[in-house]
Amino acid sequence: MDNKQGINEAIEQVQALLGDRISTAEAVLTQHGRDEFWHHAALPDAVAWPATTEEVSEIVKICNATGCPIVPFGTGTSVEGNVQAIRGGISVDVTQMNAVLSVNPDDFDATVQAGVTRKQLNAHIRDTGMFFPVDPGADASIGGMTATRASGTNAVRYGTMKDNVVAIKVVLPDGRIIKTSNRAKKSAAGLNLTQLFIGSEGILGIMTEITVRLHGIPESIAAAVVAFPTIEDAVSSVVETIQAGVPIARVELLDDVQLDAINKYSGFDYPVLPTLFMEFNGGPKSVEEQIERTRDIMNDHGGGEFRWETQEEKRNALWQARHDAAWAVKALRPGCEMWGTDCCVPLSSLTKYIMDTKKDLENCSFPAPMLGHVGDGNYHLIFLIDPNSEDELKEAEALNERMIRRALAVGGTCTGEHGIGLGKKHFLVEELGEAVDVMRTIKLALDPNNIMNPGKVLQEPGEVSSIITG
Amino acid sequence: MDNKQGINEAIEQVQALLGDRISTAEAVLTQHGRDEFWHHAALPDAVAWPATTEEVSEIVKICNATGCPIVPFGTGTSVEGNVQAIRGGISVDVTQMNAVLSVNPDDFDATVQAGVTRKQLNAHIRDTGMFFPVDPGADASIGGMTATRASGTNAVRYGTMKDNVVAIKVVLPDGRIIKTSNRAKKSAAGLNLTQLFIGSEGILGIMTEITVRLHGIPESIAAAVVAFPTIEDAVSSVVETIQAGVPIARVELLDDVQLDAINKYSGFDYPVLPTLFMEFNGGPKSVEEQIERTRDIMNDHGGGEFRWETQEEKRNALWQARHDAAWAVKALRPGCEMWGTDCCVPLSSLTKYIMDTKKDLENCSFPAPMLGHVGDGNYHLIFLIDPNSEDELKEAEALNERMIRRALAVGGTCTGEHGIGLGKKHFLVEELGEAVDVMRTIKLALDPNNIMNPGKVLQEPGEVSSIITG
Repeated sequence: MDNKQGINEAIEQVQALLGDRISTAEAVLTQHGRDEFWHHAALPDAVAWPATTEEVSEIVKICNATGCPIVPFGTGTSVEGNVQAIRGGISVDVTQMNAVLSVNPDDFDATVQAGVTRKQLNAHIRDTGMFFPVDPGADASIGGMTATRASGTNAVRYGTMKDNVVAIKVVLPDGRIIKTSNRAKKSAAGLNLTQLFIGSEGILGIMTEITVRLHGIPESIAAAVVAFPTIEDAVSSVVETIQAGVPIARVELLDDVQLDAINKYSGFDYPVLPTLFMEFNGGPKSVEEQIERTRDIMNDHGGGEFRWETQEEKRNALWQARHDAAWAVKALRPGCEMWGTDCCVPLSSLTKYIMDTKKDLENCSFPAPMLGHVGDGNYHLIFLIDPNSEDELKEAEALNERMIRRALAVGGTCTGEHGIGLGKKHFLVEELGEAVDVMRTIKLALDPNNIMNPGKVLQEPGEVSSIITG
Repeated sequence: MDNKQGINEAIEQVQALLGDRISTAEAVLTQHGRDEFWHHAALPDAVAWPATTEEVSEIVKICNATGCPIVPFGTGTSVEGNVQAIRGGISVDVTQMNAVLSVNPDDFDATVQAGVTRKQLNAHIRDTGMFFPVDPGADASIGGMTATRASGTNAVRYGTMKDNVVAIKVVLPDGRIIKTSNRAKKSAAGLNLTQLFIGSEGILGIMTEITVRLHGIPESIAAAVVAFPTIEDAVSSVVETIQAGVPIARVELLDDVQLDAINKYSGFDYPVLPTLFMEFNGGPKSVEEQIERTRDIMNDHGGGEFRWETQEEKRNALWQARHDAAWAVKALRPGCEMWGTDCCVPLSSLTKYIMDTKKDLENCSFPAPMLGHVGDGNYHLIFLIDPNSEDELKEAEALNERMIRRALAVGGTCTGEHGIGLGKKHFLVEELGEAVDVMRTIKLALDPNNIMNPGKVLQEPGEVSSIITG
């Protein structure tokens, strides 16, 4: 359904509201028409930069009256086609709403506008002895991270956005402004709207303020690296370490392909083997104890030299390879685009799951290094594809499909942290069945005109979706 | 709206389905007409005991077709009028659905039927080295705990039901059966229905199976007790301990009135002072370090002798007073009933909040000991009232109201862990305003005939609610 007229009316009215804080310039639209991994671009008709929650509310009211689609936009660092404006309309860019509104060290929380990025927040609170732990890699906006239920390397200890968002100010699809929760550390007051909006990918409203949980910077931090003869050994030792109650803060698995890429890119000489990069937090004695415990377990599983450091510079040097991973991957095939998979399976299935996937990759025609947040059972392949090759796109899609169906078969999920976006709508149905109808009922009840990020997350009856075609 | 005819039809049809697993005997109805704290009883017209999810689905379909209200019922240990059948209908008692369906030590999870109690689950998994941490005091059913978003003493370290439920099988108000999530440790797949149902107090459906997160039994456990000259000192030292990053597992504050009651009841000679009961978990070195750190902080705040024990029997002896608290309270006034308050405030406001509340209590005409899950900013007064005294009910209601409004004024909540139930509907509106309309929209979209626990949680437009009148 084309709604050119409604969209044009909306743009005109928003222009009257925002003046030069709305643009239809081609370069701006292009910037807002796609995200970081490979997907077909889909440009909005305009991009608006509101400065306040009230302005967002006015924009939403205009769009609701005219039937103009809205795509909430933060830093554009999502990776599942979440921000593509597949039905046109207005991309509402919240990056001008970037104030840290309050920091409460005694309550371990801070309230920020949606456009504040995680690094900006951490810089702002540097002197409080606290930090915001969720780290998806990119310097994403807190609003966008909330909308995709982001997580990353710290999640095994500190949780995901699900565990670190306390309350949200939301503009609903009819323009009403609500606060989803109070600021107490726990509450049993009514339906949990905070959690309903975390991970809602913009289909229920636009978040404008988020209260997040902060954590004390640990007294002592240690980094450690150890290589294993097989992936099985690496994964089993992680499972056992967690079972032993070691509160490990990060544990990242990089496979041989990834290590080889890093060696070539950064001139390191890591053994080209499955390798764990770890971090331990706590008091000095606790960290020591965690390391002893972990080292023993990893030795039993054939782990090589267990290198670890506590001093900041040396820690950074030890983790440099992990930090270089993304660049090293890109350098494997200049000019390529990245397509990232994002399965998450119960830990008990992880080893077999990874082994089967590695087998799938034996005849793969493009590089596909692996990198896993293995303490959570979540891991990614990065397919380095030529976006102009229909064959490679199809091959990537087929591999991804096999991985996802294999994850679903063991009770896992089609997405650990990237969201459903555009291309995984059919997998969401395969994963949760009729529960998706409940999601659709809620979406329609709150957004009867379907203006909020339409066409995302929820497959419409009869719709056939695919990552390639959207 | 009386729907006697519809209810009678439903009972007849459910009788045909369940045979003698439905009862209308007075004693049974009475048992299901109220919970553990003081509220007016409201009896259902019948109590049904389904044995399977499919039977629950059939019952719900019958009730949806006849407009017969349903009240889901676990162990009846809730405390906010959550299970009262204020509009009659059928109380659906899930206690016969009490099988532990699976335990997955490698995945740190277990799936249970809704009627399994937390102690039953912990007994079942005793030999796995794992435990289920959420402990609201009563041996409640996992289904009921999920429905009220329960928490208790362990929440400061292990979180509430919000943090420990992975997936739920739910029978929707139209009888459809859905699974809210997969079993992976994290997921970004669609709207978070799991969290929507946690804390939904039976108004959106009946949960029949719950997958919960398990935790490794810590290698070392220490219990500690320390008394303070003032509540301010006690609370400040807790805030500082948490800020210092000590991962304290439990920290309970009992006030002087409570200590006096325990001394009298159990023949102890604790100083009649605000006292913290604590627990520390971890490796032996970590526990030692946590205790050193905590003791230093508490010494600085005027704490008395810091007694601590690691050996199980001695730990239990040290905590005996805390365990006796409920009995000691009841013994303060034989024949009385209990009315528990349940506010939760940001930690930064806790000291002033408690001091102001203690001032309120100076001329209170019944005993009102205090007990707080102080690491979360959550605490309870227990009013020991004569349920036949209109004056005492009114006095209790007024005190509770003052406490709640004071909590809301500092960004706190009217309920930390007991839920909204019957008597706090108006406070929910005061706390979250228009967000309650969003909850109502969702409720109506999923339960258009309003059969699921009607009259609870969500105040209807124009309704005046009160804890006394319901």
